[in-house]
Amino acid sequence: MTALADLSTDALQALAVDLAREIEAFRARGLKLDMTRGKPAPEQLDLADAMLTLPGNRDYHTEAGEDARNYGGLQGIAEARRLFACMVGAPPEQVVIGENASLALMHDCLVWALLKGVPGGARPWGQEQRGRETGGIAFLCPVPGYDRHFAITEGYGVRMIPVPLTGEGPDMNAVAEAVRDPAVKGMWCVPKYSNPTGETYAPHTVEALARMETGAPDFRLFWDNAYAVHDLTPAGETLANVLEACAAAGNPDRAFVFASTSKVTLAGAGLSFFGSSPANVKWYLANAGLRTIGPNKINQLRHVRFFGDEAGLTAHMDKHRALLAPKFAAVEKALAARLAGTGAARWVEPKGGYFVSVDVRPGTARKVVAIAKALGVAMTPAGATWPGGADPHDSNLRIAPSFPALPDVKAAAEGIALAILAAAVEAEQQARGEGGAVA
Amino acid sequence: MTALADLSTDALQALAVDLAREIEAFRARGLKLDMTRGKPAPEQLDLADAMLTLPGNRDYHTEAGEDARNYGGLQGIAEARRLFACMVGAPPEQVVIGENASLALMHDCLVWALLKGVPGGARPWGQEQRGRETGGIAFLCPVPGYDRHFAITEGYGVRMIPVPLTGEGPDMNAVAEAVRDPAVKGMWCVPKYSNPTGETYAPHTVEALARMETGAPDFRLFWDNAYAVHDLTPAGETLANVLEACAAAGNPDRAFVFASTSKVTLAGAGLSFFGSSPANVKWYLANAGLRTIGPNKINQLRHVRFFGDEAGLTAHMDKHRALLAPKFAAVEKALAARLAGTGAARWVEPKGGYFVSVDVRPGTARKVVAIAKALGVAMTPAGATWPGGADPHDSNLRIAPSFPALPDVKAAAEGIALAILAAAVEAEQQARGEGGAVA
Repeated sequence: MTALADLSTDALQALAVDLAREIEAFRARGLKLDMTRGKPAPEQLDLADAMLTLPGNRDYHTEAGEDARNYGGLQGIAEARRLFACMVGAPPEQVVIGENASLALMHDCLVWALLKGVPGGARPWGQEQRGRETGGIAFLCPVPGYDRHFAITEGYGVRMIPVPLTGEGPDMNAVAEAVRDPAVKGMWCVPKYSNPTGETYAPHTVEALARMETGAPDFRLFWDNAYAVHDLTPAGETLANVLEACAAAGNPDRAFVFASTSKVTLAGAGLSFFGSSPANVKWYLANAGLRTIGPNKINQLRHVRFFGDEAGLTAHMDKHRALLAPKFAAVEKALAARLAGTGAARWVEPKGGYFVSVDVRPGTARKVVAIAKALGVAMTPAGATWPGGADPHDSNLRIAPSFPALPDVKAAAEGIALAILAAAVEAEQQARGEGGAVA
Repeated sequence: MTALADLSTDALQALAVDLAREIEAFRARGLKLDMTRGKPAPEQLDLADAMLTLPGNRDYHTEAGEDARNYGGLQGIAEARRLFACMVGAPPEQVVIGENASLALMHDCLVWALLKGVPGGARPWGQEQRGRETGGIAFLCPVPGYDRHFAITEGYGVRMIPVPLTGEGPDMNAVAEAVRDPAVKGMWCVPKYSNPTGETYAPHTVEALARMETGAPDFRLFWDNAYAVHDLTPAGETLANVLEACAAAGNPDRAFVFASTSKVTLAGAGLSFFGSSPANVKWYLANAGLRTIGPNKINQLRHVRFFGDEAGLTAHMDKHRALLAPKFAAVEKALAARLAGTGAARWVEPKGGYFVSVDVRPGTARKVVAIAKALGVAMTPAGATWPGGADPHDSNLRIAPSFPALPDVKAAAEGIALAILAAAVEAEQQARGEGGAVA
């Protein structure tokens, strides 16, 4: 299709009229589609239906002979730590298993850092004087990023500094410059199939994050490997091991790694994982030991019985891919059909994860969400991918195609593409001083 | 038996010789018994064996039609909040369900109070200037009490002020005096079958706690109703409703109530509950919403399917009582047989809960634990029931009879009684200047 910028004023107006007609027709379909959150579809949850009757009658002994029903076992049962170590990239003895939400582990690590400090730090982060004049300690936030990460740091008054993503992870010039400030204590990272851009940090990026000089001796990467095994292609992309990179660089305690089975087994009833250096694991367990006598080991046993081994986990993720890949293909197809060549949007084809990130014409993202809403398509709010919900370019949108059924994803993506183009046409007309609201 | 104090020097020495012989014989049995922690016995966990295959094949819809497998539902599913509201003493809409550990909810409430403050407070507890000169904010700690409570406040640098228990709850004169200090922000309470004394706070105590004037406008009772339904007699004891009492007294936000099914279903795989005023519940959910997208609702459904209704819960607790009551009776019998009339110890016969609290001759508790250890009986460390592990009288011991099998409980209790008497005889001899170590 022709770029909007190259269209004549008349052609643009004709397109606007066509789009207005299409929008009216789409609206008349009375759809009600939800593309807001990265939730697994019921069909994906069905894949783990066997878990609803596991571990099974009188099956409660761990391989070590412990009674998994009772209290204790703070770190998690050995067979579960061994099975899921691959998602964390740490040896099983450096893995801790939590309850159903890795977000909770990230929250707790921040809280403990604020109240008690972390290994290598001189004092609790909440008592740092540095950075007070500029608003306290800070986290780097690659953008666009995950709103629930930003909500945690915002919730505890941690200043957030956006750094741009490049397609190979964060812009390391910007990062290296920013971390020289000792007030910068941490950084949010979704290093594989990043939420929402889908990019996987390149080996040189991981290496640079591990090696860089930080002003804070107790700087931490909050490494949320949420999509560790969530490939949309059989081969998948490979993420360099950040714990090994940090150890090799002489910064063994730099990374807190998080992962979960929320998008593997049951979204609300999975397991979460923390992995790190021996010193950080010791710190984590000392703090967690005040909070609980032990985790739900029956749910750990349930997972072990369900998968058997790592091959079982891989085979299970193949089934997820079979359900998810067509939905991502439908989004790609709808966006390309409507937007290719128009200059109205740029997007990536992710090789994994749960999102498609779309950069629409600056200044139109909120408008796109409003038009989509009128079309019956709920989208993640514009700005959600930026700290504080404030996208300075009003440009980034996150499409979450996992939950609705395939025909609905197709319809919703067509609606979103329509909304993107309509908003871009309107903006182009306004830029030329020709006014005219399409929707 | 004659009081030790009334024995002649010769009789005391003869008793010491007899006891030394008994200790040697007991030691020779080579027992290895653990009476340290309030863990349910395997037979108690067997009562919930059906949970290992629940909720059952394709059973994942809540009564509201939600898919319990997926994310969301922060407060917990309605049918589970309704079922367990009786353990909290709040209407279901003021109940929040957490994961497997109520200790974690208490921890999180303290952490959020420290970092963000609570409704009615002017600032986060961690930023209070009052009390700085005396070591920061403080919690009242009824003694003897629960070591894991004290570990949380100690872990976050909250000063702990012991207040004596009376048999009807804490000494309200001491409490009322102490809470006039605005640095006193909270109080640990195990109001029913208190750990370890077994006492239930009397109605007038609950009333006084609800009504008392506190220097801190944001004072909170951390009301750990751990033994809400854990009666050792069919009738049980009745605890006044603290939330109602606080509301009636014009202090509706004063109490955070906690409970769990840890000692109801599976100790490591149960549910925990938070209940409080509407303002506190709103506060709790706002904070919890940063930490997680939602709880494990499948485990909530599992509990609902297992019990059916409140009558099912009551019937289940009857089965626990049938297993536990004989163990408590065995402890009582062993203590009475050896110690009645000697003046060497005072203890209570609890009507519920998980512990028998014994006050031995001051200055001998550590010695008793050491003798018991030599006899092959592991006890909770002396001092554990006091903040910081420091019992100023070296007098209180906690006996936890739930876990070992009944014959082992019997043997262990006999060993403990023997150790208590031996330590008292030795102390009496030393007090009279007659030296002589029994063990």
